Amino acid sequence: MSLRVTFLGTGGAVPTTRRNTSSAFLRREGERFLFDCGEGTQRQMMRFGTGFGVSDVFLTHLHGDHTLGLPGLLQTMEFNDREAALTIHAPDGAGGRVRRLLEAAAGHQSFPVRIEAAADGDTVREGDGYEVVAFATDHDTRSVGYVLIEADRKGRFDRERAEALGVPVGPMFQRLHAGEAVELDDGTVVDPEQVVGDPRPGRTVVYTGDTRPTDRTVDLAAGADLLIHDATFASDNADRARRTAHSTAAEAAKLAARADAARLALVHVSSRYAGSVAPLEREAREAFDGEAFVPEDGDEVDVPYPDATGDPDSGAESEADADSDADGGTDRDPP
Amino acid sequence: MSLRVTFLGTGGAVPTTRRNTSSAFLRREGERFLFDCGEGTQRQMMRFGTGFGVSDVFLTHLHGDHTLGLPGLLQTMEFNDREAALTIHAPDGAGGRVRRLLEAAAGHQSFPVRIEAAADGDTVREGDGYEVVAFATDHDTRSVGYVLIEADRKGRFDRERAEALGVPVGPMFQRLHAGEAVELDDGTVVDPEQVVGDPRPGRTVVYTGDTRPTDRTVDLAAGADLLIHDATFASDNADRARRTAHSTAAEAAKLAARADAARLALVHVSSRYAGSVAPLEREAREAFDGEAFVPEDGDEVDVPYPDATGDPDSGAESEADADSDADGGTDRDPP
Repeated sequence: MSLRVTFLGTGGAVPTTRRNTSSAFLRREGERFLFDCGEGTQRQMMRFGTGFGVSDVFLTHLHGDHTLGLPGLLQTMEFNDREAALTIHAPDGAGGRVRRLLEAAAGHQSFPVRIEAAADGDTVREGDGYEVVAFATDHDTRSVGYVLIEADRKGRFDRERAEALGVPVGPMFQRLHAGEAVELDDGTVVDPEQVVGDPRPGRTVVYTGDTRPTDRTVDLAAGADLLIHDATFASDNADRARRTAHSTAAEAAKLAARADAARLALVHVSSRYAGSVAPLEREAREAFDGEAFVPEDGDEVDVPYPDATGDPDSGAESEADADSDADGGTDRDPP
Repeated sequence: MSLRVTFLGTGGAVPTTRRNTSSAFLRREGERFLFDCGEGTQRQMMRFGTGFGVSDVFLTHLHGDHTLGLPGLLQTMEFNDREAALTIHAPDGAGGRVRRLLEAAAGHQSFPVRIEAAADGDTVREGDGYEVVAFATDHDTRSVGYVLIEADRKGRFDRERAEALGVPVGPMFQRLHAGEAVELDDGTVVDPEQVVGDPRPGRTVVYTGDTRPTDRTVDLAAGADLLIHDATFASDNADRARRTAHSTAAEAAKLAARADAARLALVHVSSRYAGSVAPLEREAREAFDGEAFVPEDGDEVDVPYPDATGDPDSGAESEADADSDADGGTDRDPP
């Protein structure tokens, strides 16, 4: 099942010609989410071809560089005759501000717009095989981060073993993989444990928004496949990062290391690094053995299943094996 | 004296990857103005190098595609440590909406921000040799257009004639050009009328914002050097233009012809013409003998003095003559 993040805006509070203010688009199979929506996000969505079919916008906080694109995006959805409801998640207590922003911009939407409060620990969105959970962050205003957590997937189905046990190819394969015992023609009973491996972990993507590094983020990002973290400054501006309640790239990287995340995307990059983000990447790579990178606007990052990464800690198989998985998701059945 | 318009956003209510929502930057020598400020305008200003040093933002109306860039622009001005006051002109009665938009976006400015009401006929801004006047337009909300009108310039100083009359090269030239009679050593009095031509007209730039064509615009645009007019649709969508209180390119062009404007910039182009604006330009050129064009985002248009255009109706001189003008502006004195 595909899971892909498109970075729409990787800049800090002040955009540059190269980096827009904050927004990230996430697509998981047919589901489409937006995390933050800085000014100009709708044009980034056009430029990078994401479409406007998002069901949920997850706002980390109400600063303009994370929200000012919302009224225009809703206006464009309206012009596109959208009918589906849109849910806007905002930190608990900040919903009134969202409403006022939308009203001040005079838009009228004929599709339903719901504004829902997101507090630490809330499951703010649930779907087939995943949930999105809000968690407390530490910025200078009401703020939360969001983590998309996939449920464990069924264990791998051992087709060869099933055949060796005399299970005929066909519907019994599905029943076994679904956890049901089956009785063969000769009366032998085959239990699912005999042919189905241990459950395999799903994927985790964390989007912090603007924040100091926190223990809570370490918890939520434990083993994350992709951690998208505030990295506004390099360490030469560590004081400024503290004062403005942001993080340095090194702080984000140390956090990623503690959480044992696989990959770290450094975002909300200050315009002072418009010339080069090398200082950020350099210090992050010193503190973190995983993959650390500063995405460009428009970069797309695929998030593979952990058991397809070749990571020795996750009992890895090759990507080809994962591709031939008997039940990689909703669109595949056991043979 | 230079007068230049930079088109920052030439698209309609829904931007495209090529055309942003409405905004135009005008620079007249050291003065810098912004007309409308759609979402993403600050990045257009970065991209097209206008700088952020505008003293006044003239809003034609409060629809989001003309205003949503304002909070982010102010935030960036704040980050840039701006100290100078900013005046935001908005249609009479709409100031509260501007204030709410700025407040909803949570920005705080340490520089003064004034919001001033603009009603039909108001001189909303005055400066050295020009004024900006608001005029009523016809859109589906409170709306005004703006016209920048330069004062007449002094007549041309006839240096050869002055020398023939025995006026010595030097300060007497300036005094005569300033309208003062001078007495020569031999007692002869030379009157300014003898050596200074008729006052020469200044320039006029009209920015309508969204509107149906109106007689009031014809009046204000009489002889305009540049008329920037709503041309959201081509004539095949004339009904839609009426219904949404916009203009077609042909309507804008007929108006420009009635006003005897020199040039017509067709803006607020609907995204349905993203493929080609040829239909708009074609129908405008059929109805208007002057220069009609659809500017691209980033296009810069210089507005020369009418007596430098070579237009036979304006008693024109060649551009070279105008350049050697004895008093072309504040930075030149008679020889």
